Formats: sequence, C-alpha cells, structure tokens
Amino acid sequence: MFENKETTSIDQLGEFGLIKHLISAIKLETDRTIIGAGDDAAVLDPKGQKLVVSTDMLVENVHFDMMYTPLRHLGYKAAVVNFSDIVAMNAVPSQLTISIAFSSKYTLEAIEELYAGVLLACKQYKVDLVGGDTSTSPRGLVISGTAIGYSGETDVVKRSGAKPGDLLCVTGDIGGAYMGLQLLEREKRVFLEHSDMKPDLKDHDYIVGRQLKPEARVDVMTNLAKNGIVPTSMMDISDGLSSEIFHLSEASKVDFSIFEEKLPIDQDTFNMAVEFGIDATTAALNGGEDYELLFTISQDDYEKIKNDPDITVIGHAKEAGMKNQLISKQGNAYELQAQGWQHGNSE
Amino acid sequence: MFENKETTSIDQLGEFGLIKHLISAIKLETDRTIIGAGDDAAVLDPKGQKLVVSTDMLVENVHFDMMYTPLRHLGYKAAVVNFSDIVAMNAVPSQLTISIAFSSKYTLEAIEELYAGVLLACKQYKVDLVGGDTSTSPRGLVISGTAIGYSGETDVVKRSGAKPGDLLCVTGDIGGAYMGLQLLEREKRVFLEHSDMKPDLKDHDYIVGRQLKPEARVDVMTNLAKNGIVPTSMMDISDGLSSEIFHLSEASKVDFSIFEEKLPIDQDTFNMAVEFGIDATTAALNGGEDYELLFTISQDDYEKIKNDPDITVIGHAKEAGMKNQLISKQGNAYELQAQGWQHGNSE
Repeated sequence: MFENKETTSIDQLGEFGLIKHLISAIKLETDRTIIGAGDDAAVLDPKGQKLVVSTDMLVENVHFDMMYTPLRHLGYKAAVVNFSDIVAMNAVPSQLTISIAFSSKYTLEAIEELYAGVLLACKQYKVDLVGGDTSTSPRGLVISGTAIGYSGETDVVKRSGAKPGDLLCVTGDIGGAYMGLQLLEREKRVFLEHSDMKPDLKDHDYIVGRQLKPEARVDVMTNLAKNGIVPTSMMDISDGLSSEIFHLSEASKVDFSIFEEKLPIDQDTFNMAVEFGIDATTAALNGGEDYELLFTISQDDYEKIKNDPDITVIGHAKEAGMKNQLISKQGNAYELQAQGWQHGNSE
Repeated sequence: MFENKETTSIDQLGEFGLIKHLISAIKLETDRTIIGAGDDAAVLDPKGQKLVVSTDMLVENVHFDMMYTPLRHLGYKAAVVNFSDIVAMNAVPSQLTISIAFSSKYTLEAIEELYAGVLLACKQYKVDLVGGDTSTSPRGLVISGTAIGYSGETDVVKRSGAKPGDLLCVTGDIGGAYMGLQLLEREKRVFLEHSDMKPDLKDHDYIVGRQLKPEARVDVMTNLAKNGIVPTSMMDISDGLSSEIFHLSEASKVDFSIFEEKLPIDQDTFNMAVEFGIDATTAALNGGEDYELLFTISQDDYEKIKNDPDITVIGHAKEAGMKNQLISKQGNAYELQAQGWQHGNSE
C-alpha cells in the first residue's frame, strides 16, 4: 500500500512493442477463441449460442485511487466487473477485451502488474483476453473492458421478468465493499497527514478485499442451474441495493418490499459501520460495488434455495403502484430512495 | 469550429437519466440484436456465423483536439474506426458499444452531439448501438468503442496470409488525413495567437474531412466479394502505410516492394504537402488515420481489380529477408522505416 517502485519507461518499448509484450503473456483458456489478440480483430466461435455483451469503464480518481489500489487488484477488478454483467444475464463469460489509456507516470512494470491482474481473473473465470487498445493519456488511468459471454436464447434472464409474489433474493452479503472503501479512505487521510504512520487495515481483510478484489457470482448461477432454477429477473449490484431494486422495479413493472432484518450484512461490515457511525442498513442499501446478484424467483422455487448459504430472500415483489418499501426491524414501512449519481469531479 | 455554446449541466439528469436519455435515441437497424442497450448486457444473434470483435479508444489531446473537432464528427469517427477493424478482417460490422468518460466541462448538449455522431455512423453502416458506459472523468474526454461483426470462418482474412508474388493493394488515397491534421493544427495556432482571425480551411474540405470524418471501406470489400476476390492478407491503415506494411510483412513472413509512383495521393493532399514543405510521399507513407485498407491478392486476380477506381496496386510481396523497400520515382531502392509510437504526454 502507498508504494511505487516501478522503473521502466514505456517509451523504451513503443506501442507495438508494448502490445506484443502484453500479448505474449496470454494463454487461451477456451475453444471458443479462433483468433485471439494480435490481428485487426479477434474471431470467436459462438457454437450456436446467443451472444451476451457488456462493457464497463473504470476511471482513476473516479472509480479507484492509486494511493491504495494495488494495480494487480485493479486489473482483476476491471475484468470481474465486466464478467459480473454477463453473469447477471445468466450467461457464462468467455472472452474479454481491455483497453487502457495511461499517463507517463505509469511504467512498464505498472502496466504489467495491471495486466497480470486481468490475466489472473481470466484464468480464474476461464475467459480469454482477446484484444484491446493501449494509448497514452494526458492524465491518469482509464480502463475500458468489454466482456462477451454465451447463452441459449431462452436461458437469458432480463431485468424485466419479475411478477407480483416473486421472492427477491440477494447473493452473499452487501455493504462490505462500501465499508472497505470508507476504511481505505480514512487510512489514506491519516497517511497524507502523518506519513510516518502505517495504515491500519489489520483484521479488515474481508471488507478491504470486497472493495479491491470483488468476484462475479458465477458459482451461484451454476448452482441455481443445477437445481433447475431460472430467476424471473436479475441484475448485479454495482451501484447499491436500493438503486438496483428501482431498476428491477421499473423494468418489471412491479414494486418491492424488503425486510431490514433479512439484509445479509457481514459482521466486519457491521462493526466498521458502528466504528464510522454509519447505520449498517444504510451501508447495505446504498453502498455499491459488492457485485453480488439481485434476482427474483417464483415462490415455487423457495424450497430449493432456502438452505443455500449463498442466497438470502430479502423481500418480495408486489403489484406496481404500492411503492418500493423497506420494512424496518420495528415493523415500520419506509419508502426506499433510489440513490442518484453525482457528477463529483471538475476540470 | 472553435465554438462552444452548450448550456445544460449533466448533474441535472444524473447518470441513469443520462443513459435513459441516450438510449431513447437508438433505433435498432439489424435483426441480429435481440436485446439492445438498457439491461446488464446486450443479447445478440450470430445466426450461425463466427464473431469478429475489435476495440479502439480515443483520448482527448492524444487522438483529438476539441479546438477543431466537432463533437458530432468525433462520435462518427469513434464508431467508424471500430467498424474499420471489422472490415479489415473481411467481416461486416453489426453492433457497437461506446463508453465515454467526460469531465464536467462537457454539457448534456455536448454529449448529445457526440452520440448523434455515433448514431449517424451506426445508421450509415447499419450497425446497432447495443451498450456502453458513461462516467465522469477528472479531466478530458475518453471514448472507448467495441465493434462486433460476423463472418463465415473461411471468409476471415488475417494479416498472415500474403505469399511471395502477391500484389499489394491499397484502397482510396492516403496521406490526406495527415495533411488535414497539419492544416487544422496550423489554423489552431493562428487562432490562439490572433483570436480575431478566422480559420482558413476553404478549398480544403477533402483533407479536413479525411481527418475529422473518416469512413470504413465496407464498399470496397463488398465489391471484392462480388468479384469473387478474397484477399490473401489484409489490415486497415490507421497508423500509416509504412508501419502497416511492416505488420503484414511480419505476420505473413514475406517482405514487400512498393513503388513511389504508384502511391495514390489526392491532389489536395499533394498541394498541402507542398505548402507545408513536406514530401508528399512521406505524408503518404507515415501519415496515419486514413482508414483505407491495405491488402494482398493473388496475381491471378489482377484482371478483376485493375479497372477498379477504388483500388491501387502499389507493390508486391517477396520472399522474407529481402527487406521492405520503397522504389523511388528515379528507380532507387530505399529500405522502408516502420514509424514508432511515441509516448508524447506527461502528467
């Protein structure tokens, strides 16, 4: 953390040298890649299935802070956030392109670290890195990824299929990535004011990991498929539970009730929220970047998932017009607020 | 040129409002798009063909200068440079994702103009815009595009298929985009020094258009296919003819001789080169961004293309080890130089 010991300038390689160097580290993982990186375009084999395509961009000082983000984790995350969107359609990610624009403060070693993280995620998820672009940038680092997955047409799960009575489920636990971010930001402020103090992250591996190195829940989708469950609607939680509930609500034309006592919050997340004087429920509702899945299932499927430790039923869908509501532990109903997005930076 | 009269801040809409607003302008053009933008990912139908995927990133003050780049043209170009890579594989572009990161100096009207250009290119090339991401950026504008096309597996043309004796062909004319850039840069300097002087671009629509609003040569590929010609190797000219010749040479393990007198140079390009004291041949060899196609064909196909006004035979492939050479108008052989890429910016 807070270190920078890279030494080789990329000028020594040039763009073509850099691209060739980065491509040389790629090992193809799937038989769906006919031509990988290195030509004008990659050539891929959908093997008779439909394509699922999504794209996500990470911008320095908007989505990540180099003060506390190891480049390898950043590369891993840049890949995973794209995989997560594919999984959220109930498809399997299979290929990825990654483009980066970087300023001259980034050395060859830094870019290699970033790509090592991308390739680690690719290996982990059996995805092929099949292309990308590298460019200089006047300032900072921008990473743009596009993931491609495959699915049978009838297997695709959209945001729009929830029906009144369906159960609303969330995978894993939520709010951890947000509390990890609060901790990292606090330790950064401490470090900036007292550079002799070491950042104190001990005993908080879990929430720090949730922020810096999220995972896409392919495992859960695989389990659901094994149990013969197809969610009626689904999306991933990148902007925060509350905001995603509004997306499902709008696309499916239903409203939801969720129960505060059901929200899956890890103990470390809860403790850190207490330490920061933040309501843990608020962190769970509005903190983003957990990359868990939010989905609805028919009540008929409840028996099949009720003992799954990775899935929590947090509420249910109602007829449209009944408002999206949080039922508090005391039994009071509060209208949910969709969190907006703030244009927080200026030139 | 040099104007900025936008007025609405994007804060008023928020990210979700912006995305919804941008999506509302999309009309799907192909029956290969099952689900377009608006869910976690797009769902596409390859209709039994192979996929061809490419990605390109444009960065403000590296690839474009807002002083003289109309946003609509920039959006058009961001789409077209991606289409061009698909065409360079002998495939037909069919879908596109566009992600943008923009600083707060960009208003809603500016982003709308940019997307209007993207959508114009999509309409022109019958491509569907199926997704993207929008983000703030601490400074400047970054546009990342990924194009998807389709092809039969045996129709794909790689960089690696050229054989000794094959004819080296180029479409259209080259060096124009580079001279257009020189002109725009000169007029920018004049404007910065004397803001009362109007930029003098008259009579130079051609080269200015080559720089600001390039096209992908789908038309040429369609004609070749009609005539039963499959190039033995191909790529598009984005970095400059000389550099691309080295790519074909390396991938195909052949060397090339090209003839100075054969290089297709437009009269406006030539005149502007004279005005700038630049050798027109140098502009044609090293100036990039023409997005013409560079390809090889078997000598047996010569009769079929010799009267095509869009195609010029500029040389031929030789056994490897004979060097890539330019034969001058005087008949002298010069070794070609691949132009490197310079990391020209600093933080």
